[in-house]
Amino acid sequence: MAFNDRFLRACRRQPVDTTPVWFMRQAGRYLPEYRALRSRYGFLALCRHPELAAAVTRMPLQRFDLDAAILFSDLTLPLMGMGFSLAIEEAVGPVVERPVRSAADLARLRPLEPEADLPFVLETIRILRQDLSVPLIGFLGGPFTLACYLIEGRASRDFARVRALMFAEPSLWHAMMRILTESLQRFALAQIAAGVHALQVFESWLGVLNPQDYRAFVQPYLQALMAALAPTGIPVIFFGTGTAALLEAMRETGGTVIGLDWRVPLDQAWARLGKGVAVQGNLDPAVLLAPFPVVAEHAARILAQAGGRPGHIFNTGHGLLPETPPDTVARLVDWVHAHGGRGPAAGGEPWRGW
Amino acid sequence: MAFNDRFLRACRRQPVDTTPVWFMRQAGRYLPEYRALRSRYGFLALCRHPELAAAVTRMPLQRFDLDAAILFSDLTLPLMGMGFSLAIEEAVGPVVERPVRSAADLARLRPLEPEADLPFVLETIRILRQDLSVPLIGFLGGPFTLACYLIEGRASRDFARVRALMFAEPSLWHAMMRILTESLQRFALAQIAAGVHALQVFESWLGVLNPQDYRAFVQPYLQALMAALAPTGIPVIFFGTGTAALLEAMRETGGTVIGLDWRVPLDQAWARLGKGVAVQGNLDPAVLLAPFPVVAEHAARILAQAGGRPGHIFNTGHGLLPETPPDTVARLVDWVHAHGGRGPAAGGEPWRGW
Repeated sequence: MAFNDRFLRACRRQPVDTTPVWFMRQAGRYLPEYRALRSRYGFLALCRHPELAAAVTRMPLQRFDLDAAILFSDLTLPLMGMGFSLAIEEAVGPVVERPVRSAADLARLRPLEPEADLPFVLETIRILRQDLSVPLIGFLGGPFTLACYLIEGRASRDFARVRALMFAEPSLWHAMMRILTESLQRFALAQIAAGVHALQVFESWLGVLNPQDYRAFVQPYLQALMAALAPTGIPVIFFGTGTAALLEAMRETGGTVIGLDWRVPLDQAWARLGKGVAVQGNLDPAVLLAPFPVVAEHAARILAQAGGRPGHIFNTGHGLLPETPPDTVARLVDWVHAHGGRGPAAGGEPWRGW
Repeated sequence: MAFNDRFLRACRRQPVDTTPVWFMRQAGRYLPEYRALRSRYGFLALCRHPELAAAVTRMPLQRFDLDAAILFSDLTLPLMGMGFSLAIEEAVGPVVERPVRSAADLARLRPLEPEADLPFVLETIRILRQDLSVPLIGFLGGPFTLACYLIEGRASRDFARVRALMFAEPSLWHAMMRILTESLQRFALAQIAAGVHALQVFESWLGVLNPQDYRAFVQPYLQALMAALAPTGIPVIFFGTGTAALLEAMRETGGTVIGLDWRVPLDQAWARLGKGVAVQGNLDPAVLLAPFPVVAEHAARILAQAGGRPGHIFNTGHGLLPETPPDTVARLVDWVHAHGGRGPAAGGEPWRGW
C-alpha cells in the first residue's frame, strides 16, 4: 500500500487532496477489541509491552480510513522513568504516590535516560515503523502537565496546588521545570530517532494559566523543547485544552501545528495564530454521541471555518469518549474525506489565498 | 456605622474613592471560626439555619474591611427545593443522588416555590438586612451550571456527559433549561424581595462550551433570567470560569457586571466587553498562598490593568482556597483600598475617559 502523506503535508501547510483526519484517543475504550485486550492486561502493562502497544496503535487503522496513527502511550510514563511511582486508577487516571511538596522531593526526580528507562516505548515505535502505511505520531506530555501530576498527584479541575507552588516557591518550580524539560527533550529526540514522523506535545492542563503567568513560568521551557526539536524537521503539534486566552502566547512558543480544543471557533483561533502555522481540531468529542446528522452539521461548521486553507488537520478538540459509537467514527472519517479541503462544499467561502 | 456603598457605585460605573473589594468564598474553610462551626454542623445544616447562615456571612466582615457581604449558600439548593436529593461529599462537593438521564427523569423536577421550598434562604437575607453596613450580594447558580449537576451528578472537569445530552437530546435539554430558568427567576426575585442589594449569578461551569453552542443552548435562558431581573434595578454580576472564548457572548447576554476568572488579562477582557459594563476580578486565588510581596505584585498588575476606570470591583478569579492565610486576606483588602481607583499609583496610565 502506498504511504499516505496527507497528514504530513497538512502539517507543513502544503496542498492536499482532502483534509486529513485522526482523533485523540482513537485507540481507546470505545473500541470493543481494545476493551477485550484491557480485560486481560492493565493499562500500564499494555504501554510497557511493545507488541501489544503496537497492536493497540493499529486497532483504529484496521477499522477506519485514518490519515495518521498515534503511539499508544501515557503522558506520565516519563515520570515513572524518572523515579516516581504511579498507579492508574479507574475513572481517575494516573496517580503519583508521593507527590512533590518541597525542594527535598526534587532529589527523587532523576533525569530520564530514554533508552534505559523507557525502552519499550522506543521498541513500539520501531515495530510500528516497519509496516504502517500512515505517519506515526509520537506522544509526549509537556513539562507543565507533568509538573501538574508531580505536584497535585493526579488530574484536577484547576490545579490550584500547582499554581500555589509556582507563585510561592518559584525557585523550586524552575528547578523542577528544568529537570523535566531536559528529560522530555531527550525522550522526544529518542522517539524521533526511533522513527516517529511527527510528535504531539500534550500540554493538556495549560489552560489553568493566564498568559502572563504562562510566559513567566512555562513558556521558556516549552520554547527550549521546541527549539531542540526544530533541527530534526519533524512536525510538532502543540496541543492544550482551555487555551482560549493563550493562543498568541502558544504561537510565540513554537510548534508546526497548534492543536485547538473545542472551546474556540477554529476560524477566530486561526486568525489569532496567523497564517504561518497549521491548526488541528476541533470537533467537540461529545458531539460524536449524537445522531450522525448532528455530527455532520458540527463537522461542516469546522470545515467551513477552516475555509479550505492548506494546513488544517481534522481532529476532535479532546480525546474520544468511551461511549463513542465506532460506527459514528467510521462515518465521520469518510464524511471529512468527502467534504474536506473544499471550503464551498462545506458551506464556507472558497479559499482565495491569504 | 454609615452604609458603605462603594461596591454598588462601582457596579453602576460611578466614581468611587477607591476600588471596592470582596472575595468569592470569603466566608469559608480558611477561617478558623468557620471551621469551628463546621465541626459542629454539616454544610447543608449551616445553609438551612438562618441564624447560623447569617453568622457565617458576617464572619469575614468582622475580620476584614470588605466592601460587600455575600450570602452564605450553595448553588445547588434550588435543586433540592425542586425535588432532587443531594449530598455534600467532602472534597467532592454536591452530589445528586439520581441524576437526569432521560426525559422520564424530568418529571421529578418540579418548579421551585422559593417561599415554600427555600424559606431559610430568604429568612437569612431578612436577618442580614437588619444590621449590615455593606451591601449584601444574593447567591444564585445559573441554569447551565444547575443542569450540569442534574445530568453529571457532580462537578466534573469538562462535563462531557452534559454536552453529549445537549447535542443528542436537544428537546430534553431545552425542556430542562426552561424549568430551571423559570425556577431560578422566581428564586432571584424572592431574594431581591427579601432584601439583597445585588445578585451574583454563578455560571461556574460555562467555560466548557464554545460560543456557538453557548448561544444555541444556554444564552436564551440566561437572557430571559437577566431580562426578568432588569426591572428591579438591582445590579447583577454574571460570573463564570474558563470564559476566555465567551466574553462577547456573555456581554450580549446581559448583567451589570461581568465576573472574570484569573485566566484572562483584565484589560484585554474589559476591552472586549466594552465600556458599557463593569468588571469584577480577577486575582488568581492561588497567589494568596504566596508571600505578601508576591500578592501585592499580582494585585498591582490587576489595578494597573483596570487603569483607574470607574466600574472595577476587585475580587479573586475564583473562590478563596482553604489554605489561604487570613492575615494575607486582611493585608490584601487594605492594600487594594490604599492603591485602588488610582491607575498611576498602581503603575498604569491614569484614566482619561473612554
